Amino acid sequence: MKKEINPEDFASCPLPISSHDTIQLAHGSGGKMMNDLVQKLFLWAFDNNQLNRQDDNAVIEIYGNRFTFTTDSFVVDPIFFPDSDIGELAVNGTVNDISIGGAVPLYLSVGLIIEEGFPLEDLRKIVVSIKNAAHRADVSVVTGDTKVVNKGKGDKIFINTSGIGVIKHDFKIGPEYIKPGDVILINGGIAEHGIAVISKRENLAFETTVISDTAPLNNLIERIIEASGEAVHAMRDPTRGGVAATLNEFADISKVGIRIIEDRIPAKEAVRGACEILGFDPLYVANEGKLVVLVSKEKADAVLDAMRAHPLGKEAAIIGEVISDNPGMVSMQTGIGGWRIVDMPVGEQLPRIC
Amino acid sequence: MKKEINPEDFASCPLPISSHDTIQLAHGSGGKMMNDLVQKLFLWAFDNNQLNRQDDNAVIEIYGNRFTFTTDSFVVDPIFFPDSDIGELAVNGTVNDISIGGAVPLYLSVGLIIEEGFPLEDLRKIVVSIKNAAHRADVSVVTGDTKVVNKGKGDKIFINTSGIGVIKHDFKIGPEYIKPGDVILINGGIAEHGIAVISKRENLAFETTVISDTAPLNNLIERIIEASGEAVHAMRDPTRGGVAATLNEFADISKVGIRIIEDRIPAKEAVRGACEILGFDPLYVANEGKLVVLVSKEKADAVLDAMRAHPLGKEAAIIGEVISDNPGMVSMQTGIGGWRIVDMPVGEQLPRIC
Repeated sequence: MKKEINPEDFASCPLPISSHDTIQLAHGSGGKMMNDLVQKLFLWAFDNNQLNRQDDNAVIEIYGNRFTFTTDSFVVDPIFFPDSDIGELAVNGTVNDISIGGAVPLYLSVGLIIEEGFPLEDLRKIVVSIKNAAHRADVSVVTGDTKVVNKGKGDKIFINTSGIGVIKHDFKIGPEYIKPGDVILINGGIAEHGIAVISKRENLAFETTVISDTAPLNNLIERIIEASGEAVHAMRDPTRGGVAATLNEFADISKVGIRIIEDRIPAKEAVRGACEILGFDPLYVANEGKLVVLVSKEKADAVLDAMRAHPLGKEAAIIGEVISDNPGMVSMQTGIGGWRIVDMPVGEQLPRIC
Repeated sequence: MKKEINPEDFASCPLPISSHDTIQLAHGSGGKMMNDLVQKLFLWAFDNNQLNRQDDNAVIEIYGNRFTFTTDSFVVDPIFFPDSDIGELAVNGTVNDISIGGAVPLYLSVGLIIEEGFPLEDLRKIVVSIKNAAHRADVSVVTGDTKVVNKGKGDKIFINTSGIGVIKHDFKIGPEYIKPGDVILINGGIAEHGIAVISKRENLAFETTVISDTAPLNNLIERIIEASGEAVHAMRDPTRGGVAATLNEFADISKVGIRIIEDRIPAKEAVRGACEILGFDPLYVANEGKLVVLVSKEKADAVLDAMRAHPLGKEAAIIGEVISDNPGMVSMQTGIGGWRIVDMPVGEQLPRIC
């Protein structure tokens, strides 16, 4: 880590960033403005190999063993939504961020920031949700912290979960290892979490209720790694900014082109209908139990089979490939056969989705 | 970890807790109500050896090596206060929670929850503060997360820091190892952080400005362990609830009595004056760079010398002892020679101090 930063060094981090001099909702969206903030402010300050990797976790080495370490705060609104709540989301989100590095998650911390006046009955429900989600993901909550802020200075409850996992194999997984020729897979229908939360928030009734896909992906990931060995190059759970943001980050970090085929991307009919009514592109809507996997072509079928054999991967599909042309760009063959560019999301269509 | 909790099990965690059915500011105070919430709700749900220890960190074992893992959220108001800010506080707080278990802190995560409209200039200051504090404490920030909440749904910025340290010795340190006969030491004047924050919050001008004592204690703790070996039984940084809360938790967890001597407890004149004006007992006011150490009698002088030789321990003092009488009780010999009971803090005198 470089030496201390003094006020005179501030010139090397000029403000405004992306033409803004205050924080906007879009700075938390997982899209272009958040990316700018990360690149221009956070990476400027914390210049180190781990953060520079820009993955959702850090890989740290202690006594010759490799671990992943990650953190995530949850501010989802509403805190209770179809089939889940902020507590389960907070556990699964961090379990997934540990697992996508190919690690086995072991221990979680839970930090609560609660607004004065929050009902203890709701807190009990959420704490039980956290406990049960940890049980299902086979991780232990071993340390915690509770802070209370005055009424009107928070919003019911915010939850931070951080976690540690252990990497048991000796190959490397991360967006920097993606190569042209890699095949892109996903384990099922997209955009379910985002639609579930927004329908509850806005009191929308669709013909079929869409429920959040929140799930711990660690067991599915173990099966994938068994099937792929070192042929798996990168994995990520496409949360904020959806599949579009994840693929754009991958293309950007590994300087490759990415091509996907619209007709192959799974999505439930109810989700497609809701997106149409709301004017959302499902590619940009958050998931909490989906996994994008990039794997060498020769292992793609084996990985697809392994995913389909798992309860969380029954609808798994191959949705695209990595190419050397157009580095940094994601393009999609549309249902009618043309091609369009899938940009990094700009602005914020669904704030506080996780 | 026991199996999942079902709604019918809720009866074993009856509400209200401490006669409240909503969260009060005092639930975040480090005092009796927070203790009740931890015991009756959190330990009920997350029944495991680590949480049951009720220390400020978890000791986890992976591949035969011992690590500490901890989390802390910071909601201090105001975010800038005499000589420091929320960023430095967040780093030092977690460095200290790792170190008090006798571990060497290595890696931190930083999770930001920012209110829409927060000035990027202030964010840059805080990020630099985090970076510089990490540099001084010799730890790396390796992973992070940023969330943004709508204006009026947060309060400027909340910061979670979690962290990992490695335990390099083979003895055990924690409140459960305290024994009658142990000597109690502190490394300097108490109540400075609390007074610094409250004076800024309330725009109070005292004759001398009191500045926060926030500091990373890891290096001091390494010196203490070198001097004590396995004779050091417990350490804690007395933050929320002050020295009174820390000693009461120690007495409660290890079922011992604790006796301290008022005249031996260091505190700056300006702090004593401010406490008198504000009606605070300095024993209950938060510290952020103080360390309470419990060590076997035969090593007490060696530890005192080691503390005094360190820049953060020049005013170190022996302030009391552990006895077998009156288990669970903290008592203090007052300046005029009588004895009074030092209770666990009840209610909340200084909300959002960290």
